[in-house]
Amino acid sequence: MVSNIRRAAIITKMDSSEASAAASKVARLLGESKVKVYSVLPLEVTGAAPVSQEKLKDTELDLVFAIGGDGTTLRAFRTIPSKVPLFSINSGGHRGILSEIGADSIEQAVHAILGGKYFYDSRTRIQATINGKVLPPALNDILITRVSLTRTPLVSIKLMGDEIKQRMDGIVVSTPTGSTGHSFSIGGPVLHEGMSCLILSPIASVNRMPQLVIPVEDIVVQSTYESHIIIDGQETFRVDADKPIKIFRFPDDATFLRLQKKGMRQLAKLGFSKFEF
Amino acid sequence: MVSNIRRAAIITKMDSSEASAAASKVARLLGESKVKVYSVLPLEVTGAAPVSQEKLKDTELDLVFAIGGDGTTLRAFRTIPSKVPLFSINSGGHRGILSEIGADSIEQAVHAILGGKYFYDSRTRIQATINGKVLPPALNDILITRVSLTRTPLVSIKLMGDEIKQRMDGIVVSTPTGSTGHSFSIGGPVLHEGMSCLILSPIASVNRMPQLVIPVEDIVVQSTYESHIIIDGQETFRVDADKPIKIFRFPDDATFLRLQKKGMRQLAKLGFSKFEF
Amino acid sequence: MVSNIRRAAIITKMDSSEASAAASKVARLLGESKVKVYSVLPLEVTGAAPVSQEKLKDTELDLVFAIGGDGTTLRAFRTIPSKVPLFSINSGGHRGILSEIGADSIEQAVHAILGGKYFYDSRTRIQATINGKVLPPALNDILITRVSLTRTPLVSIKLMGDEIKQRMDGIVVSTPTGSTGHSFSIGGPVLHEGMSCLILSPIASVNRMPQLVIPVEDIVVQSTYESHIIIDGQETFRVDADKPIKIFRFPDDATFLRLQKKGMRQLAKLGFSKFEF
Amino acid sequence: MVSNIRRAAIITKMDSSEASAAASKVARLLGESKVKVYSVLPLEVTGAAPVSQEKLKDTELDLVFAIGGDGTTLRAFRTIPSKVPLFSINSGGHRGILSEIGADSIEQAVHAILGGKYFYDSRTRIQATINGKVLPPALNDILITRVSLTRTPLVSIKLMGDEIKQRMDGIVVSTPTGSTGHSFSIGGPVLHEGMSCLILSPIASVNRMPQLVIPVEDIVVQSTYESHIIIDGQETFRVDADKPIKIFRFPDDATFLRLQKKGMRQLAKLGFSKFEF
Repeated sequence: MVSNIRRAAIITKMDSSEASAAASKVARLLGESKVKVYSVLPLEVTGAAPVSQEKLKDTELDLVFAIGGDGTTLRAFRTIPSKVPLFSINSGGHRGILSEIGADSIEQAVHAILGGKYFYDSRTRIQATINGKVLPPALNDILITRVSLTRTPLVSIKLMGDEIKQRMDGIVVSTPTGSTGHSFSIGGPVLHEGMSCLILSPIASVNRMPQLVIPVEDIVVQSTYESHIIIDGQETFRVDADKPIKIFRFPDDATFLRLQKKGMRQLAKLGFSKFEF
Repeated sequence: MVSNIRRAAIITKMDSSEASAAASKVARLLGESKVKVYSVLPLEVTGAAPVSQEKLKDTELDLVFAIGGDGTTLRAFRTIPSKVPLFSINSGGHRGILSEIGADSIEQAVHAILGGKYFYDSRTRIQATINGKVLPPALNDILITRVSLTRTPLVSIKLMGDEIKQRMDGIVVSTPTGSTGHSFSIGGPVLHEGMSCLILSPIASVNRMPQLVIPVEDIVVQSTYESHIIIDGQETFRVDADKPIKIFRFPDDATFLRLQKKGMRQLAKLGFSKFEF
Repeated sequence: MVSNIRRAAIITKMDSSEASAAASKVARLLGESKVKVYSVLPLEVTGAAPVSQEKLKDTELDLVFAIGGDGTTLRAFRTIPSKVPLFSINSGGHRGILSEIGADSIEQAVHAILGGKYFYDSRTRIQATINGKVLPPALNDILITRVSLTRTPLVSIKLMGDEIKQRMDGIVVSTPTGSTGHSFSIGGPVLHEGMSCLILSPIASVNRMPQLVIPVEDIVVQSTYESHIIIDGQETFRVDADKPIKIFRFPDDATFLRLQKKGMRQLAKLGFSKFEF
Repeated sequence: MVSNIRRAAIITKMDSSEASAAASKVARLLGESKVKVYSVLPLEVTGAAPVSQEKLKDTELDLVFAIGGDGTTLRAFRTIPSKVPLFSINSGGHRGILSEIGADSIEQAVHAILGGKYFYDSRTRIQATINGKVLPPALNDILITRVSLTRTPLVSIKLMGDEIKQRMDGIVVSTPTGSTGHSFSIGGPVLHEGMSCLILSPIASVNRMPQLVIPVEDIVVQSTYESHIIIDGQETFRVDADKPIKIFRFPDDATFLRLQKKGMRQLAKLGFSKFEF
C-alpha cells in the first residue's frame, strides 16, 4: 500500500519546548519525502509554511500531527477541517490516552505512515445547541454543571421518548472516547473506543442515580438553575435556568490515523492491562 | 393489525398461588378466543393442555406467557423454543424488571395481544462453552467466581486480540438486559436494554479494575483457580483452574412481546424516573 | 426529670407558609407553658418577641426550634449561640435527614420536651481558616472546588505528618453528620452520626483516589488553582491558588435535642432500613 | 531507650525460599545480640530453636517476626500469644500493605529494634460467635457470604438497637486495618489504621445499600440462607440459615512493632501518596 499523504499540518501544545522539538523532527522527516508541511501558529518550524488557526479550516490537508497531551489532541480536532485524519504524538503531556506513540518513536512512525502502513479509526463525536446556538463538537464529553454552588438543581433528561428527573449538581454526556476522561474520574465504566454509544454520568446525584449507557440518540437536558457547559474540558458556555440543551451526534466522526490495532488500549493506558501484584 | 397468536403456553413461578390464579385467568381469556393453550407442568389449569418442560421445546407455539418474577422469565427463556416470543407478567415476584404488566392488567393485555396491538423487542443473549461443553444461554448474565474463598485468583480476560490480567474474585459478563441485575448490584451502569453490547464487571478486583462496556465479541476468561459459573443466577457449573471459558453471542435473541414503548423502562423500574425529594 | 427550657427561639425556612404555620403552633404551645419565646426575623409570630439574626448570638436561650428542611437546620446552627441546643422539625423541606420530627407531631414533641423527656446529641463540627481569615463552622461539610472549569488542579492534602498529591476537581471534608450529604452523593459511605471522625471525599479524582476516613485532626488542603470553598452548601468563599486551607475541629459541638434514640436513623432516612423487594 | 527484646520467634510464608533466607538473616542478627530465637515449624533455621504452632501459644516471647506477605502476617496474629507484638517483613509476597520493611532493610531494622528505636502500634480486632461457638479473631475482616449461588438472601444487620434488612450476597465487616483489603476491592473507603471503628460493606446489595462506618459495637448478622464465614480471607466456617452471627471486639488488640510513623502509610501502599500524571 502506498500512502496518499501529500499535505500535512502540525499542531503542538502551547509553550512546550518538548513538543516544538518533536514538531521540528516531524517536519524534517515529512519534508525529506516531499510532503507539503504546515505549522499551525504560533508554532513555527523550519521547512513548514505557517498557517493561522482560522485559515486551517480552509486548507487542503491529508493528515494533521497533534503533538502534546490529550488536551492538544482534543483542541486540534475542533480546529482542523472536520474530515481530516489526525495522528497523535504524546510529548510533554500527562497520560496521553488518545496518543498513538511517544516522541521517541517519531522516526519509525513517520516512515510507517509514508509507507502506507496505517489504518483509520473513526470516533463518534457529539454536539450541543442551546436556543439554536450551535456549540463546538466534542470528542470526549459535554459537561453540564450548576453555576451557583449553593443550590442543587433538579435536572431533567429526556431521551427516547422518556424523561428522568433527579436532583444532581450536573451531568456529563461522554462518547466512548471520553469514557476514560471525566466520566471515569466520577466512577464510570470504560466504553470500548470503537463503539457507537454514549454514557450519561450524573454528577453528585442526591439519590445516586446510576450511570446510563445509551445508543447515540438525541438527548435534551434541562436544569432548574443556570448552568455551565464545558466542551471537552476546554471551552465553556453558560445557559439560563430551564433552557433545553439539545445534544446529538456530530455529523463527522473524528478520524485517528493509527499504526497498531490494540483491543484494549484504553485499559492499558489506565494501567490495567497487566496485573501488578 | 390482526394477531397471529394461535398457540400459547403458560409457565408460572413454582408454588405461587398468585401466579396460578393469574395463569387461570390468562388461560380462560385465551380459550374464549379459540387460542390453543398449554400449561407447562407442574402447572395445571382448566382449559389448558399440560405439557412437560422436556416436550415444550418441540411444541409449536406463537407465544409464551411467563407469570411470576424475573426469575420465572429468565427460566422460561431457557425452556421454550428459542425463537418463540414471551410475554412477562409480574405476579408474586419482587421487582419484575423484565415484566410488561402486573397481574391486575391481564384482561386489557390479553385483549391488546389478541387485537394485534403489540410489538417485538429483541434482546442479545450470550452463551459459554468450556472444553467444548456448551452451557445454556443467558439472557441476563454469566457469573464466574472462585470456588475457594481463601484464594484470590488471577483472572485473564482475552478480547479483541488483547489480554487483561488482574486479581479478582470473579467477573460478571452481562447483556444490556442483565445490566440491572448482578452487575448493577456491584456498582455498574445501566445499559439501555435495546443496545447490542456487553458489560464486564470485575468482582472484588484487588486493583479496582473498572467495568468495561464492549461490542458483542467473543471473550475468553481464564482463572488460576477452580471457578463456579452461574447462568442467569439460576444454573451452576464448575470449571477447573486455567481452563478457558469461551463466551459468545447466542445465535437466537430473546424476543419479548411488548405493548408499550418505554425509553427508560429500566430506570423507572429501579425507581429513578421521577425525582423523589 | 423536669425540663429547664425557659427561653426558646424559633427559626424557620424563608418564604414557607408551612413552616410559619408550624412556628405559630410551637409558639402557642410554649407560651401556654410560660416559656419565653423569640421569633428570629423575618419570622413574626403571635406571642413571640421578634429578634434579629445579629442579636440572636447575644440572646440567652435554652433551646432553638429550627423549622424547615435540612438547609434551615444547617443555617440555624451558624446563627444561634454556639452552645445552645436545637430541635429540628421537618416542614416544607425535602428529606429532613437532620430533623427529629415532622410538623404533624409538634404537639406531642413540645409536651415531651417540656416534660423533660429528651436527651442531647452532640455532633462534631469543623472550621477552616485561610491566611488567618476564619470561616464559619460547618456541621455537614467544607467543599473545596476549582474555579476554572477548564483546568484540573493538583490538590495536596496534608494530615498526620504526611502528604497526598493527586489531580482532582476538588475535595469534600465531611463530618459524620455530613456523610449523608455531598459526600454520599459522590459515592461515599455513611458514617454513624455519633462518631468523632472525618471523611475526605475527592471530587472527580483523575486516578480515582479512594475516600479516606480519618480521626478529627488538623488537615491542610492546597490547590494549584484558585478554589471555591462552600460551607454546608450555603456560604461560599474564594481562595487563591497555592494558599493553604487549614481545616480543624470547631471547639463547640452542635447539640441536637432529641426524643428518640435511633441507632441507624441515617440509613432509615435514606430509605435503607427495611428491604423493599 | 534500651530494647527489652530477649526472646523472639520467626514465622515465615510457607514454601518461600526468599522468606527462609530472610529468616536466616534475622536469626543470625538476633543471635549475635544474645536474643533467644525460635523458628515456628515447618521453618528451621540455624541458631533458632524449632517450636510447633501449637506450642507457640505457651511460649514466652517479646516479639515475633512475620516474614512473607500480608497473608503471613494475618496468619501469624492468629497463631502467636495474643498480647505479643509482631514485626512484619515483606518478602516474596504481593503488596505487603501490613509490612514495615522489605527484606533489603533487615539489617538496619534489627539494629534499630535492638537499640530500642521503635514504638508499638495497636490495632482493633474483631471476633464472631455462632451458637456459642467462638471463631478465631480477625485483624482484617469477617466475610459472610451465601453458600448457594442461585439465591439472594435477605440479610439482617442489627446494631445499636436498630435493624437493617436488605437483599445482598453477603457482607464484609472490616477493621480499619482491613479497610484496604476486601472492603476496598468492593469499592470501600480507606479507614485510617489508627482509628477504632468498623466498616460494614454489603456485597452485591440489590438496592445498593451504602457502606456504613460505625463505632466498635456489637453487631448481629443473620441471613435467610446458609452462609460461609471467612476470617481474614484464610479460615472458613459455615453457618445455617437464620442463625445469628455475633460480631464484637476481640479483647486483645493486635500490636505491631514499628520503626517509622507514617500518617498515610495505607494510601502510600495503595499507590496514592504521590500524583502520577
